[in-house]
Amino acid sequence: MPSEFLTSVTVREAFTQIGAITFDPSDEMIELDSAAGRVAAEDMPSAEAIPGFARSLVDGYALLVKDVQGARETNPAFLKMRGEVMIGLPAGIPVKEGSCVRVSTGSMVPEGSDGVVMQEYVRAMDDEVEITRPVHRGENIVYAGEDVSIGSIVVRRGKRITPFDAGVLAAIGRGRVRVFKRPRVALLSSGDEIVPVDENPPFGKVRDINRHTVSALVKSSGSHVDFAGLARDNIEDITEKLSAAAGYDCILISGGSSKGERDYITDSIQKLNGEILFHGINIKPGKPTIFGRLFGKPIFGLPGHPVSCAMVTVKFVVPLLKRMAGEDPGPSLVLTGLLTTNVPSSYGIEEYVRVRIVKRDDICLVEPVFAKSSVISSLSAAHGYIIIPEGVEGLEKNECVEVYPLE
Amino acid sequence: MPSEFLTSVTVREAFTQIGAITFDPSDEMIELDSAAGRVAAEDMPSAEAIPGFARSLVDGYALLVKDVQGARETNPAFLKMRGEVMIGLPAGIPVKEGSCVRVSTGSMVPEGSDGVVMQEYVRAMDDEVEITRPVHRGENIVYAGEDVSIGSIVVRRGKRITPFDAGVLAAIGRGRVRVFKRPRVALLSSGDEIVPVDENPPFGKVRDINRHTVSALVKSSGSHVDFAGLARDNIEDITEKLSAAAGYDCILISGGSSKGERDYITDSIQKLNGEILFHGINIKPGKPTIFGRLFGKPIFGLPGHPVSCAMVTVKFVVPLLKRMAGEDPGPSLVLTGLLTTNVPSSYGIEEYVRVRIVKRDDICLVEPVFAKSSVISSLSAAHGYIIIPEGVEGLEKNECVEVYPLE
Repeated sequence: MPSEFLTSVTVREAFTQIGAITFDPSDEMIELDSAAGRVAAEDMPSAEAIPGFARSLVDGYALLVKDVQGARETNPAFLKMRGEVMIGLPAGIPVKEGSCVRVSTGSMVPEGSDGVVMQEYVRAMDDEVEITRPVHRGENIVYAGEDVSIGSIVVRRGKRITPFDAGVLAAIGRGRVRVFKRPRVALLSSGDEIVPVDENPPFGKVRDINRHTVSALVKSSGSHVDFAGLARDNIEDITEKLSAAAGYDCILISGGSSKGERDYITDSIQKLNGEILFHGINIKPGKPTIFGRLFGKPIFGLPGHPVSCAMVTVKFVVPLLKRMAGEDPGPSLVLTGLLTTNVPSSYGIEEYVRVRIVKRDDICLVEPVFAKSSVISSLSAAHGYIIIPEGVEGLEKNECVEVYPLE
Repeated sequence: MPSEFLTSVTVREAFTQIGAITFDPSDEMIELDSAAGRVAAEDMPSAEAIPGFARSLVDGYALLVKDVQGARETNPAFLKMRGEVMIGLPAGIPVKEGSCVRVSTGSMVPEGSDGVVMQEYVRAMDDEVEITRPVHRGENIVYAGEDVSIGSIVVRRGKRITPFDAGVLAAIGRGRVRVFKRPRVALLSSGDEIVPVDENPPFGKVRDINRHTVSALVKSSGSHVDFAGLARDNIEDITEKLSAAAGYDCILISGGSSKGERDYITDSIQKLNGEILFHGINIKPGKPTIFGRLFGKPIFGLPGHPVSCAMVTVKFVVPLLKRMAGEDPGPSLVLTGLLTTNVPSSYGIEEYVRVRIVKRDDICLVEPVFAKSSVISSLSAAHGYIIIPEGVEGLEKNECVEVYPLE
């Protein structure tokens, strides 16, 4: 179907089309030390209880709680000292009525004991100790399985592994973990007006901004990205560079803000037997976005204006790549704050407005950064963005808005 | 001074002592493509105006605004077509009164023109165009220097470079950028009860959790970390492993939750002519934290309990490492929400309470995760933490609290 018959879609339709892309990421075993930031490829259950034995949380004396009931400074309890548990070794001596055993932080709590008193409340004598406060049942003990119980899943398939997950995986003995491979993305730039960063642009041309912004965003989202070249505005050059990217999981080609440039991109995709799924989204900035399939993989034609290109990458490309990376996204945590000024918008278009966040008297103020869609320095100055839905004509000063992160 | 004479310090004193550490990071030149996430080692000014010439933001016609004043569907303006500006090439034809020049998105706007009308509002005939709406001055033009003016600093020394900063640096032609070298951190574990992750702990011992949590936290904060070994609880082994770490910018040694273990660490630091600056902070979890100088560099003795160890790393170690990395931290953006339950705390101690965030009817609810300080799975389940200041005895249900990120 010639691309001129394709009209732009709503945000909802765009997400539906992108959401229909399926991808079965392969996996690999890696060292635990490299696992933080990667996505778990399987549920990770514990074969053990953690800790494996009752441990003391403090330096003190393991005892029977009922032996020190009501103990106080003026009426201390006296217990017989039966020995000490060495850290890292099994506790040999059980605690019996009227007696206690010295323990230290992290050491095993002996059999029979149901509480540990901190040494601060104890006067130790030769073979006896004097205890000046009561202890409640379980005080200062972490019981076997209290951290992780046998069979419980410590990290679920699809979770991006945090440093704390790495700690839990260490606790259960997973020195190597199975994670999804990173999606491999090919990134192309296009446009007769574009020169690489290390060239001095002749009058009328500009340097390639989008390559660097998009590449950094894709990398920080956990995908691998290779730059596949800067194509001139003609079908031969674009098809040649797209063909060279056939082995990748996803192709991104920036440029195509003008209709002429966009046509080269859609024509090239179609010439290579690809399919255009939509051509334009009702958003601002970012309207001239192309999405389709090429070589059986998703392809985005990103707008040429740097802000438009970056916003479409943040809002549409990165979520797809995270899904392709096997990630099951958790709830997104968004900041809220009060708008410092009215923000106009157009009915029927979802608008993304860059904002800065300013704290004043403990109130979070949200300050729009107004700038044209080609002004990349406006994104560099922003802390996040707000969304004006398509059915709304602008937001008012002092409205409470949600601020989404840009990365 | 023997360590038993050192008492614990307040959070404020701890930050003062840690803040007194000075470090002069060295720098290196790297490719722009690797720059996102690194810290700028110099102010980066632009030698050029960006864009270098007035560009059109749309496909349309460059004209004189006064020629289309009052134009509308029923009373269109007619202008003579004087040619087209090709994208990437200089605009040869100036725009004069009564005439216009065809432009496309990103192309140069010809001399004389002060507005561009979108092609949607134009009917083109042979050598004339009919324009059905007025244009305001500057409409659809991004002027020379509107993104970046000559001499303006696009990235300041000390800023962690974002993907958008990378875009701005590309715009001004910085193919290579000067960044600070990552601080090099040596991480040791200690404790007779600790075995490496790939060993099955005999009864009484546990696997090394802290190595993996701390290492992942330090890496994700932008430092380089090497594991320098697992030391047994004796001065010989600890001093030997500390000595091997002498070349690093910072040393972290975890373990030392019990007084016995802590003493081995402080004694070893002193034996190597190091200095203990404080021994204990009035916080929970994390009280048994040692801080000092060894080989002229900062050294932390981190608590052995995994949650305490992780929280001290998040709260004290990572901010120091970021400063050592040359980073000038921006304002920290924190979420706020309503506490779902009372949270008790002790007067005189600053407490860090792990929390989960739950959204209900657009309200952000903050749910404490109560667990003992050795239960690392509680951190893995948390979304952030709240702070109960030392002068406060607990927080109440429905209080509005700030939630800090754990990473």
